[in-house]
Amino acid sequence: MRALSLRAIKSDALLEEVEQPVAGVDEVVVKLQAASLNRRDYWITQGLYPGIVTPLILGSDGSGSVHAVGENVSDWAPGDEVVIYPSAQWGENEAVQDSEFTVLGMPENGTFAEFVKVRSSQLFRKPAYLDWVETAAIPVAGLTAYRALVVQGQLKPGRRVLITGIGGGVAVFALQFTLATGSEAIVTSSSTEKIERALNLGAKAGLQYTEANWGKRLLKEHGPCDLIIDGAGGPGYGDLVNLLKPGGRLISYGSTAGRSEKLDLFKIFWRQLHLIGSTLGSPADFEALLGFMEKHQIKPVIDQQVPLAEGPKAIADMRDAAQFGKVTLEI
Amino acid sequence: MRALSLRAIKSDALLEEVEQPVAGVDEVVVKLQAASLNRRDYWITQGLYPGIVTPLILGSDGSGSVHAVGENVSDWAPGDEVVIYPSAQWGENEAVQDSEFTVLGMPENGTFAEFVKVRSSQLFRKPAYLDWVETAAIPVAGLTAYRALVVQGQLKPGRRVLITGIGGGVAVFALQFTLATGSEAIVTSSSTEKIERALNLGAKAGLQYTEANWGKRLLKEHGPCDLIIDGAGGPGYGDLVNLLKPGGRLISYGSTAGRSEKLDLFKIFWRQLHLIGSTLGSPADFEALLGFMEKHQIKPVIDQQVPLAEGPKAIADMRDAAQFGKVTLEI
Repeated sequence: MRALSLRAIKSDALLEEVEQPVAGVDEVVVKLQAASLNRRDYWITQGLYPGIVTPLILGSDGSGSVHAVGENVSDWAPGDEVVIYPSAQWGENEAVQDSEFTVLGMPENGTFAEFVKVRSSQLFRKPAYLDWVETAAIPVAGLTAYRALVVQGQLKPGRRVLITGIGGGVAVFALQFTLATGSEAIVTSSSTEKIERALNLGAKAGLQYTEANWGKRLLKEHGPCDLIIDGAGGPGYGDLVNLLKPGGRLISYGSTAGRSEKLDLFKIFWRQLHLIGSTLGSPADFEALLGFMEKHQIKPVIDQQVPLAEGPKAIADMRDAAQFGKVTLEI
Repeated sequence: MRALSLRAIKSDALLEEVEQPVAGVDEVVVKLQAASLNRRDYWITQGLYPGIVTPLILGSDGSGSVHAVGENVSDWAPGDEVVIYPSAQWGENEAVQDSEFTVLGMPENGTFAEFVKVRSSQLFRKPAYLDWVETAAIPVAGLTAYRALVVQGQLKPGRRVLITGIGGGVAVFALQFTLATGSEAIVTSSSTEKIERALNLGAKAGLQYTEANWGKRLLKEHGPCDLIIDGAGGPGYGDLVNLLKPGGRLISYGSTAGRSEKLDLFKIFWRQLHLIGSTLGSPADFEALLGFMEKHQIKPVIDQQVPLAEGPKAIADMRDAAQFGKVTLEI
């Protein structure tokens, strides 16, 4: 089969002919129709995770049809249309993933291929209202956004939500989910173009975080927020705390800008703030996500759709985080 | 009546003869039998809160009998034995206190007096299994510990809880409540004597936070914690994060050591940690606290009991935080 394979870290993935996987006990082989990219894929090519073993087929997100089922698999049959939950090892604890947790596409071979082998428990029915590409855009980014907003953030209607770094897959899903919930979304970006796109999607306001005192302007023009969804962290993290209402929540799903340099703990205990970390989501969260999206008929925002052969360049381009929404692969 | 009155900030309180309060609409005058000190009382004498207006009767914690009831008060009658919930303005939101929130003893006259005037809604029945002094030891410290541990910390049986700075009123209640819940408590202090007292109360282990690498030793000898209750913050706050299990909670009820200087956000999002601020507790929390204490027959740890006349010195001594448990006033 054809697959995007990483031969060595600090190199681009290559479109190669590799062996097709075979379903073992409790396993299913899915014939992929589409996949989507995450910054994780780029970071893996750069060797930014420990213990990367090559050759490796990249890719965490995929949609397709069941091709073959292994022993013991009774709930799926060839031809079933599915979307893949991107981990086989969340574990039993809803509060946090197991220590054995991994994400599809490293160390296990991923979805940038014609076929992928997963546990049968990783399969969920493809939403009927979405096409293959839209479905493949959901898993990692949609699940991360859903858990951050709804599970950790406990989003309710009528709230004010700040989503930093709009454009990234998680942030754009978070914007869509916030609006679907009946809450107000304010976004930040360094790019006026991305802010414009967020406003077109229904964001109430957008601020450039490169502007001095953007936080003070946000407070003055809109008031403090109930919930902040942040994937950057870094020196600006401590300032986000100032933008929360008393009792508010700041959910971190990443720290692309590094560690926080200062934190006024007086504000945190006096205002009874919650600073919460969130990673991906459990299978139960994934099921809830799919139900939530279907109920609100939410369609993922696709930035661009490329054929598998153009995947290596698209992965390398993830470095710049220039996209708005998801970059998808047609397989 | 006699009362400990603060005439000017940066001075000691004085035992003075002042006018007895009169109950207005919805109000009750309580004849106090006992009160207890908090570090807050010392900080008020030092002018460390904004907007202190003198003269002021200090004191947030008190037990006594209803002396007189104002108009509209039908649920309390003279002679009823009560403990006072220390705020009239928590508000309607269980998640956080109202912006009008104040604590008894500043700006409203407090409990270091023969009589105090409060809202009738602030009164709760004195626990029958406790004496006046034990009852007066509960409100601020017991409530702060209960909310931090049980409401924000969601403590369950069989957990490992780290309580920093053992000796302070909140920390000692947190130790007692942790043990009553059927969880394991580990404490820190700079004082070997305080650690010894905590071990006698049932703590599993105690570490001197002045020891280099005490955190690494804790991890090696006991393993990571489900819950940390911290009132210090400061440069060591970021290191506390390393002592949590995945999914664990770090609850801050104070920041006597100042702001946090660094925070590894990767650990926070990857381990799905919860860093939560907690202040005092709602009236509903207070009711739950009293029920919890009665169920487990918990008696507050009294460090020393002094007569009202010796209150000014006892307040000044709070500066050194040398006590283990509560300092109480007999009135």
